[in-house]
Amino acid sequence: MLNQKAYQSLSHTFQRLHRFGHLGAIAGWDQAAMMPPKGNEARAAAQAELQVLMHQLITAPQLQEQLQAAEQEDLDPAQRANLREMRREWQQANLLPAELVEAKSLAAARCEHAWRSQRKDNDWQGFLANFREVLRLAREEAALLAQINGVSRYDALLDKYEPGMKSADIARIFDDVKSWLPGLIEAVRAKQAGEAVIQPTGPFPVALQRDLGLEVMQLLGFDFDAGRLDVSNHPFCGGVPEDVRITTRYREDDFVQSLMGIIHETGHARYEQGLPRQWVEQPVGRARSMGIHESQSLSFEMQLGRSRGFLELIAPLIRRRFGDQPAFEADNLARLYTRVEPGYIRVDADELCYPAHVILRFEIERALINGEIEAEDVPALWDEKMMAYLGIDTRGNYRDGCLQDIHWTDTFGYFPSYTLGAMYAAQYFAVLRRQEPNLDARVAAGDLSPVFDWLQAHIWSQGSLWTTDELVRRATGEALNPAHYRAHLEARYLA
Amino acid sequence: MLNQKAYQSLSHTFQRLHRFGHLGAIAGWDQAAMMPPKGNEARAAAQAELQVLMHQLITAPQLQEQLQAAEQEDLDPAQRANLREMRREWQQANLLPAELVEAKSLAAARCEHAWRSQRKDNDWQGFLANFREVLRLAREEAALLAQINGVSRYDALLDKYEPGMKSADIARIFDDVKSWLPGLIEAVRAKQAGEAVIQPTGPFPVALQRDLGLEVMQLLGFDFDAGRLDVSNHPFCGGVPEDVRITTRYREDDFVQSLMGIIHETGHARYEQGLPRQWVEQPVGRARSMGIHESQSLSFEMQLGRSRGFLELIAPLIRRRFGDQPAFEADNLARLYTRVEPGYIRVDADELCYPAHVILRFEIERALINGEIEAEDVPALWDEKMMAYLGIDTRGNYRDGCLQDIHWTDTFGYFPSYTLGAMYAAQYFAVLRRQEPNLDARVAAGDLSPVFDWLQAHIWSQGSLWTTDELVRRATGEALNPAHYRAHLEARYLA
Repeated sequence: MLNQKAYQSLSHTFQRLHRFGHLGAIAGWDQAAMMPPKGNEARAAAQAELQVLMHQLITAPQLQEQLQAAEQEDLDPAQRANLREMRREWQQANLLPAELVEAKSLAAARCEHAWRSQRKDNDWQGFLANFREVLRLAREEAALLAQINGVSRYDALLDKYEPGMKSADIARIFDDVKSWLPGLIEAVRAKQAGEAVIQPTGPFPVALQRDLGLEVMQLLGFDFDAGRLDVSNHPFCGGVPEDVRITTRYREDDFVQSLMGIIHETGHARYEQGLPRQWVEQPVGRARSMGIHESQSLSFEMQLGRSRGFLELIAPLIRRRFGDQPAFEADNLARLYTRVEPGYIRVDADELCYPAHVILRFEIERALINGEIEAEDVPALWDEKMMAYLGIDTRGNYRDGCLQDIHWTDTFGYFPSYTLGAMYAAQYFAVLRRQEPNLDARVAAGDLSPVFDWLQAHIWSQGSLWTTDELVRRATGEALNPAHYRAHLEARYLA
Repeated sequence: MLNQKAYQSLSHTFQRLHRFGHLGAIAGWDQAAMMPPKGNEARAAAQAELQVLMHQLITAPQLQEQLQAAEQEDLDPAQRANLREMRREWQQANLLPAELVEAKSLAAARCEHAWRSQRKDNDWQGFLANFREVLRLAREEAALLAQINGVSRYDALLDKYEPGMKSADIARIFDDVKSWLPGLIEAVRAKQAGEAVIQPTGPFPVALQRDLGLEVMQLLGFDFDAGRLDVSNHPFCGGVPEDVRITTRYREDDFVQSLMGIIHETGHARYEQGLPRQWVEQPVGRARSMGIHESQSLSFEMQLGRSRGFLELIAPLIRRRFGDQPAFEADNLARLYTRVEPGYIRVDADELCYPAHVILRFEIERALINGEIEAEDVPALWDEKMMAYLGIDTRGNYRDGCLQDIHWTDTFGYFPSYTLGAMYAAQYFAVLRRQEPNLDARVAAGDLSPVFDWLQAHIWSQGSLWTTDELVRRATGEALNPAHYRAHLEARYLA
């Protein structure tokens, strides 16, 4: 008989954590999509109680011994990968002293709460007072984690979202992007200046938008027996792999954004729905990283959703709901969905400008955490980089500048995941298009199986069996290679 | 400083239980109203894990000592009532040996699962095989609880749903009902034989029914900032007092039942929404008993909802949705909602026949648990009593007879609560109508405040501060007095 005593005990603990996490995920979805306002206080108390419980479970003293003992047990490769992921989760919960966790949580709550009005008021000085404390504690956390993990300070935070990723590699990749992106944006804008884009004529009733969204989700293989589409202020993908809840928001004067938002969340959802079912209650059965998760939503939104074949496929569905407008010709939809226009706001950015927003934030947050700059240096750097990368003047406009994102009230090291995801997605589709030269024709004819089959086999079914680097190498035959991203952008925007 | 160390520790434990219960309640609502089918297995596992956790919390060894120690501490009356309720909940979780709880749960699951097809197949013999084991274990449970609590076996089960209630009292009350109910039903049927009732003409689109239901809930004071109306197969009231979730089901060919179902659940909901907020996380802040809960839904559905004034109030709302039909005159609505017609099925029974269904079940389940009859005796007794109380022949028709309810796959002692609730409701309204002789006129004019104010002051705000008997005496000046129930029925159906 195999010796797996410690491992089995750990499995049981992580299974319990998964099941409690299930309740927390559904309660969280409910809070955003269903809950009436007066339920908020009780819900927050219930969720906090659950967090305390889960923290107790993962900081129980016996886990450390069990993790050590399990290393010596007879485990198969998947179990060994599961043990590696258990250790990761255990470390994240156990490495920081409780006082630091609490201080961080208080500082974040204070900073975020004030930020909500400070952003509106363009009040950088007010924000700075709270932000200094947030930054001080983030540096303290980073220093502690860096010491234990033997990496640089920023890399220690980055590792929470992109395990194994090094900021030096990201910097190298982003420096390359910076060398060609501003020129590409300029060339594309010159090209697009002569193009006529026809705007759709509204209104677009919410019921019809929802109906359209559901049909597009169906095309995209979303399993409605294992998930739902609802409405929330901030669209997200939540729930559990067995029951994935995605949300969107509708504007009656514009269906274009909401539809692409649904396609984006459906990418996240199919990753969750496709995770290895036999591991669903264990850490190895979870999504690999934030960057890989984003690579799925961007595979759907950017690679597939904005592809010529897909727009041809959905054009009749749009016409069926909103009438036979010239704006709904596939050619025009393609122009609508690839229009490039530098702007202030990251979440509104087009595919081409988006990486500039991310690179700017990465450079600033890395320098902040590593102590190369101070909190008060942020606006000047922001202005300088926005001008250099996108030609946009943000001086004095904190609201639409360095105050626009919620992240830095709490989180450093997350921004790179967005663009890493876009790069992974481009790399997958380079392989896919090589394997299936007629991809666009098949997609236009409604056969999306090459995309689903490839992602299911190479990404979804793999959960966290491999490190991110191994996963990407096994899937595409090479490590992350941003050349595919550049090639994709040039092909789409300059062809 | 007050000595409340043990009490405070207990409070903390029960607060945690309440918060975990919140997550379970929302997950349960979600399961019935929102969850897609493939989420079922994971949800069941998550809920079971939560049950195990909550069972661990309430069976922790220190609780027994704390309950004893708290008895000696400096508690105010509300805290003392809370301690009493804590002990009740603790006892229910701790008195039964774990093996019996598990055996009961397995036998119930097997019996209920098979019942779902056996009922369709009219298969009493098949049901009997599983039912014998369910009954054996229920008797074992009853014997154990009876020994500890010093009551009869059936009373020990009854106490779970109606704390403090004795079956001898119920039998006395029900015997009285049996002495006049068949005659009353006969007289009413003779009177109604000459009345023309106009049936509404459908279809009644679901969206309009929902809209009507929402407006009626608004009239009934449901707080939509602290609750929702949704759809489920079996209507219920769930969630938590801060966020009450009620459900209904719609049939496009009949809005009458669904509308009254919504009114019924709104009664449950307002009880929950009106519970004492300062005690919301403690046992003393919960609803008093199942009978009192039912007295709220029936106050809304039977006393208020079928009253002349209320039907006058909602008639225009019905016309606004479904047109100006003669069926929607208040007179005709009153005839529709008070039509008496004995039938096989309890849940479809009218106000007058309903207690006959309950009394029959009470008498059979009491004899079963006390060992006076055996499982195989049920059909003959059922046939005999259905004929005696309602003049209905059920011989050989198990499907619409003793196999119709889910209760006996698991639960004995619950049925009396339905009719006790109807009696409490009649007793409240006797007081209310004495205090406000113009109640119908005020209700017809849209002023429902006398009802809400009285229930809020005397029932909702009292939570579990008092025993059921004390609660009813404080509210109405006397103990449960079924004369009010009889007077109500005679006034409504014979006047």
